[in-house]
Amino acid sequence: MPSKTKKQGARSNRLPVVVSGHISLLTDFGTADYFVGSVKAVILSINPTATIVDVTHEIPAQDIEAAAFTLLASYRSFAPGTIHLAVVDPGVGSARRPILAQAGGQFFVGPDNGIFSYVFDNEPNFKVLHITSSKYFRQPLSNTFHGRDVFAPVAASLSNGLSPESFGSEISDAVRLPRLGPEFKRDGRVKGRIIHVDRFGNCVTNIDPTLLSNEHTKRASLVVKGKRIKSFREFYGEDKANKELFAICGSAGFLEISARNRSAAKMLNAKLGDVVDLIIKEPTNV
Amino acid sequence: MPSKTKKQGARSNRLPVVVSGHISLLTDFGTADYFVGSVKAVILSINPTATIVDVTHEIPAQDIEAAAFTLLASYRSFAPGTIHLAVVDPGVGSARRPILAQAGGQFFVGPDNGIFSYVFDNEPNFKVLHITSSKYFRQPLSNTFHGRDVFAPVAASLSNGLSPESFGSEISDAVRLPRLGPEFKRDGRVKGRIIHVDRFGNCVTNIDPTLLSNEHTKRASLVVKGKRIKSFREFYGEDKANKELFAICGSAGFLEISARNRSAAKMLNAKLGDVVDLIIKEPTNV
Amino acid sequence: MPSKTKKQGARSNRLPVVVSGHISLLTDFGTADYFVGSVKAVILSINPTATIVDVTHEIPAQDIEAAAFTLLASYRSFAPGTIHLAVVDPGVGSARRPILAQAGGQFFVGPDNGIFSYVFDNEPNFKVLHITSSKYFRQPLSNTFHGRDVFAPVAASLSNGLSPESFGSEISDAVRLPRLGPEFKRDGRVKGRIIHVDRFGNCVTNIDPTLLSNEHTKRASLVVKGKRIKSFREFYGEDKANKELFAICGSAGFLEISARNRSAAKMLNAKLGDVVDLIIKEPTNV
Repeated sequence: MPSKTKKQGARSNRLPVVVSGHISLLTDFGTADYFVGSVKAVILSINPTATIVDVTHEIPAQDIEAAAFTLLASYRSFAPGTIHLAVVDPGVGSARRPILAQAGGQFFVGPDNGIFSYVFDNEPNFKVLHITSSKYFRQPLSNTFHGRDVFAPVAASLSNGLSPESFGSEISDAVRLPRLGPEFKRDGRVKGRIIHVDRFGNCVTNIDPTLLSNEHTKRASLVVKGKRIKSFREFYGEDKANKELFAICGSAGFLEISARNRSAAKMLNAKLGDVVDLIIKEPTNV
Repeated sequence: MPSKTKKQGARSNRLPVVVSGHISLLTDFGTADYFVGSVKAVILSINPTATIVDVTHEIPAQDIEAAAFTLLASYRSFAPGTIHLAVVDPGVGSARRPILAQAGGQFFVGPDNGIFSYVFDNEPNFKVLHITSSKYFRQPLSNTFHGRDVFAPVAASLSNGLSPESFGSEISDAVRLPRLGPEFKRDGRVKGRIIHVDRFGNCVTNIDPTLLSNEHTKRASLVVKGKRIKSFREFYGEDKANKELFAICGSAGFLEISARNRSAAKMLNAKLGDVVDLIIKEPTNV
Repeated sequence: MPSKTKKQGARSNRLPVVVSGHISLLTDFGTADYFVGSVKAVILSINPTATIVDVTHEIPAQDIEAAAFTLLASYRSFAPGTIHLAVVDPGVGSARRPILAQAGGQFFVGPDNGIFSYVFDNEPNFKVLHITSSKYFRQPLSNTFHGRDVFAPVAASLSNGLSPESFGSEISDAVRLPRLGPEFKRDGRVKGRIIHVDRFGNCVTNIDPTLLSNEHTKRASLVVKGKRIKSFREFYGEDKANKELFAICGSAGFLEISARNRSAAKMLNAKLGDVVDLIIKEPTNV
């Protein structure tokens, strides 16, 4: 996962990406208020034929890391030219910049607070523009709802075919989160953590499964909350009777801790941020 | 907000609005049942190219006022010609009338129980039709699910270009809720209330921020739950260190009580309906 | 409801159904994770003009019967040619088969675990294909997320006009759930159960209302949790003052136990699976 990044700005290729008319939404707005409907309304009033896809609106309020993870886990499933509108924005109305980024053949519109960080870590070339052309903003501009009044109209205008450069100039100092990967300790231990617990109780770690060859898995174990997990599986469905915890290569591209048809998180009493150590024993003498 | 209304029926201009093909949905159906999917299914079976936008389906069950507020807070973000399908309908199957309204260049389809009241209060001209042409209804007509069997097919048929008059005749006695605005007391106090608490804990009042000039805000305070709030801000983001409560012009068009990255509702232990007094001190002698 | 079924495979007519481009989604994924967004992303990357409709993503985790009920309650509202993508899939990654079915002029894509069972019970002709053409799958194929990597691309490819037979060959041993209907006891009692409790607390039974003629309802009663319900109504809205429980023909096509603007489930302390006896007294001598 965290392999192919390069310094921001350096050699950032300007891939001639054509917008697809698909706009994804990722917010912490919840779905009970008028927020999400208003964002969609603004998009459709500017581009009546846009196709809008909800990724989720249930990011915990103002949790930028959770939003960054969810975007990382989903953006590669979208078509080239998709515009991702991601708004988790504790600094709304302050001096934080609105940005428009290009990465991986797609577009990203949102606040400059690190929300696109993991995508940038994962893409060899990316480019970030500071959105300054207020003529594209909704008027009157609310100071508390830039999702509706800044980001939605910019994303919609972009989806109409405007060039990214219409909205502002390139910057090289976009805010970045600490990289998602684990720590590699001197004793060979890989110190990861739980970065997401999904609806089914699967505990997604920040450990790249490609660290583990097939050979490795025979000698590897995960240690979490004092429990040692030695089973590395390919399917949830293997071994129907077995209710034990196991590790698996999850659909987000990370090692996950799971249990067949049970919540691993409950079995472990584990939560976001808990440490997960990956230990690979030295091969015994041959 | 409550400024430009006029009596229903009087001089109601028949604006020649063209439908946009956009249909918004606002209900108390929740999203766990088959209800919302069925409504959308019926719409798309009648107008296969309709663009359907969820405003929310999480209006508290049968809470007409909450629905009316959410519609008020969002409808102006939609394109002209949008059809708003709003179904919070405790009287389903009784004698309450189904209605189709035109207001603000948009259309509104739902039960005649006040759900469109705040929109009507806010629009200079509106027109209400009693839907009686049962030939547009889904057959067999369920007595318990008019969202699917009456309102969805009417909205979809309207979005196909049928004239509003196809569905019934104008009425002038549509059900109205009490107006949303605050009470203006003789002592100068403005007695408002909390009309919505959003996901972030912002407390939306029914007080129109345009009551307050910049000059006023220096002398004004809000009193809620025994607490006096004297800070009137323009941004959530100002003054990062400060964790105090403040008042702000919110994105729904009303004065809101907020706290930076905290829940004002929790800090105040405030809930829907709580009184909010706006007090503007007389200017001191100059 | 359970009247017109026939044996699978026997005389299954191959109705020349044309896909509508409408794809419904029914899952237990919840809406907080990246799952639903990823499924939609894959669909739109294969068929950029597909119209995607969420039925629900809040099926209780791995509850196949609840998914089968919700699909039964909603599929008939969709246009002919709709593709229903239904993924509640405790066996993901195991040997359970992916299937594509045709029934009632519509298409159904999902795991072979009984999720389409009630639709099959309800449709005179249905046909099931075992999906084996892995060339339509997303690569790399995750072992834990067939919704995204198998079912979404198959549904999207089907919506592009591929013939169902492109994906695999017909089978006649698809997994079936026990039929949904009640037991008919020798003493004339109809022993049903609560198969769904909706957001409003209405208790949907598995009893077909057509068992009850108008004449019957005068002599009929329902017994649930020790309570006898003798009122059979046509509307929720009748008799505003009355807060008693009543039975009604619900919008899912089954007898429901309801209360006017109250939760029947709470009044009865009833839950999924509770027995509901329908008793029709012999007519008194005339």
